[in-house]
Amino acid sequence: MRLAPSSALAARLDALRTELGHAGLDALVVTHAPNVRYLTNFASSAALAVVTADGVAVLADSRYTTALDALLASEAAPPGAQAVAVGGSGAYDEVLATWLLAHAGGWRVGFEAEHVSVKRHGSWRARIGAEVASAGPGVSLEPTETLVERRRAIKDAHEIALVRESARRLSEVASAVIRDLADCVGRTELDIAADIDHRLRRAGFERPAFDTIVASGPNSALPHAQPTERRVETSDLLLLDFGGVYGGYCSDLTRTLVVGTPAAAARTLYRAVADAQDAALAAVGPGVAADEVDGAARRVLAEHGLGEAFGHATGHGLGLEIHEAPRLGPLRPAGPPADVLVPGMVVTIEPGAYVPGVGGVRIEDDVLVTEGGAERLTDVARETRLL
Amino acid sequence: MRLAPSSALAARLDALRTELGHAGLDALVVTHAPNVRYLTNFASSAALAVVTADGVAVLADSRYTTALDALLASEAAPPGAQAVAVGGSGAYDEVLATWLLAHAGGWRVGFEAEHVSVKRHGSWRARIGAEVASAGPGVSLEPTETLVERRRAIKDAHEIALVRESARRLSEVASAVIRDLADCVGRTELDIAADIDHRLRRAGFERPAFDTIVASGPNSALPHAQPTERRVETSDLLLLDFGGVYGGYCSDLTRTLVVGTPAAAARTLYRAVADAQDAALAAVGPGVAADEVDGAARRVLAEHGLGEAFGHATGHGLGLEIHEAPRLGPLRPAGPPADVLVPGMVVTIEPGAYVPGVGGVRIEDDVLVTEGGAERLTDVARETRLL
Repeated sequence: MRLAPSSALAARLDALRTELGHAGLDALVVTHAPNVRYLTNFASSAALAVVTADGVAVLADSRYTTALDALLASEAAPPGAQAVAVGGSGAYDEVLATWLLAHAGGWRVGFEAEHVSVKRHGSWRARIGAEVASAGPGVSLEPTETLVERRRAIKDAHEIALVRESARRLSEVASAVIRDLADCVGRTELDIAADIDHRLRRAGFERPAFDTIVASGPNSALPHAQPTERRVETSDLLLLDFGGVYGGYCSDLTRTLVVGTPAAAARTLYRAVADAQDAALAAVGPGVAADEVDGAARRVLAEHGLGEAFGHATGHGLGLEIHEAPRLGPLRPAGPPADVLVPGMVVTIEPGAYVPGVGGVRIEDDVLVTEGGAERLTDVARETRLL
Repeated sequence: MRLAPSSALAARLDALRTELGHAGLDALVVTHAPNVRYLTNFASSAALAVVTADGVAVLADSRYTTALDALLASEAAPPGAQAVAVGGSGAYDEVLATWLLAHAGGWRVGFEAEHVSVKRHGSWRARIGAEVASAGPGVSLEPTETLVERRRAIKDAHEIALVRESARRLSEVASAVIRDLADCVGRTELDIAADIDHRLRRAGFERPAFDTIVASGPNSALPHAQPTERRVETSDLLLLDFGGVYGGYCSDLTRTLVVGTPAAAARTLYRAVADAQDAALAAVGPGVAADEVDGAARRVLAEHGLGEAFGHATGHGLGLEIHEAPRLGPLRPAGPPADVLVPGMVVTIEPGAYVPGVGGVRIEDDVLVTEGGAERLTDVARETRLL
């Protein structure tokens, strides 16, 4: 199951408790499934956890109780954990409110404002409010943001080992995929995508990390293309973007191939994106602001007259989720300050350029920020036929 | 692309407008991606739509603008649609607030309280509130629930054709999978799951509808098992639960096999669940309360002493999402009234029983509610070796 050791969970929980202390909170209701998993090793789409000063209550419905009991009896149990039974999958909010009223009277309890709907929040407030009107000291619900996500951005040793292995296996799959695409004229995008997904599973991945992108010819100019019935033609640009989940951890890779002899415009586009990726990779290191990495790629593309052709960010954090902190993009007007890179962060570096009529090129690798700079975790030849 | 014709979108939008009128709302901000797709044909994880009395504004960021422009110029365009450009993926809330202040001054604008986070709602209110303090008539944001989902529960002709085809293809895949599992001793659950997923893709599905479940022996007693490295052994119960997405529409099927000769306890368990499924299938029809269908299955399992072994609901609606309305489960204390089945609804019928030490059995088919009763959309032999 490749679960984090109990000691790693203890460190994660204690770090969160320090944050709670800074925020003046007595507890945090964790509703975002990757955050629940990160803190407790318990993976479920429905479960939620309440982290307190000296323990963590895990709420799970009857579909998951056997698995939860087994986890709590194992060496990968979160320290101080307690299972709270939820009858049916629709009863979480009721059981949570009851638990809070019984254990958290008078407390300031944080919740994840990004991961609680207006409806759910209203239901919590109504249940707690009704009870408080009749008795007890009540519970104060306080919105919080990214308390767990900020910590998750910096991977611990257990996580780095899993991301590294995820990227290693992805590189093997990608190398084999590219080799076997040497003669792919006439194959459909959907067929190639199905083949990639099957290879991911055979390589030991739990699942693809996202819907595999195979975009050929004009479709490659759509940054979020879905595979279609289009058949690959000679001189197509062929963009492949896929990833896998291994031990819960995502890897993510893009390569753009050319089928046959590239048109001059495609070659120019490819070289510009490859140069931009090199510039961004060289910029990664501890203490660097994430928007500077993005700027390094963006400047190169602008010098090639492709500033407008690069509409997305240069990269994103990678871990239990395929998109997580930090974000390697331009600063937004009136937005938050840039994340600063720290050893232990894992990010993608994936500039691209998309030109209707010519096609699109994106090149993506996964990188670990280290004390000394950066370590590339993916290792797949770039498209030598284009260089 | 198998998109709904423009006329179907017109009917969906007009039905929603009638609901908005009943609720005294001038517009609805639609943030739930399947709802956006249902109303506009536009599929994107990020896009949102604002439905007004005479049109629909679709907000999409630069990754999706080419695809959106192509849709709006096609025969599958939503009537009265207008594209609103969002610069980067982080700018939706800002662009929405600006659009509302420009077009919806003085309006009561609904939003989907289940699909808007506390954080996002706060950001909308802050942006609109700041503007209103300085000028204009303001926009009143009103929480709504299930306005689009209620309509989606009753499929139109375009949707029924796609669900039917999805279920037909799934049945072909399942029949082939089961045939080829005749000799599966020694194969791992993960290997079997990878094989199923590959067959789904080869059968023309866009993707599996959810993480494929392959649970053997003791693992079959976990209703939400994930495939593991466990190898299938003789006399195992082998539970397979998988589905596909075709043209955007989900199908969902479970079969439980036995490897070799079943133990007497497994045989008894299987017969009880098969009887429960028959009872639930027979109960489906127009005008029937959804909890009665659940009760029919539950009574049979209780008669076999398996009431406690059946912890989940008997079924769920199926469509653009793998779980949608109606819910075929027991009534919840203080919960909403039961959904009533209506022709055009598509539901799963999937009772199960899970006994630690023996294993688990679940049997699932997809059913369309018709004027005359029900039509089973999946067609796969049940496990004859167990009967």
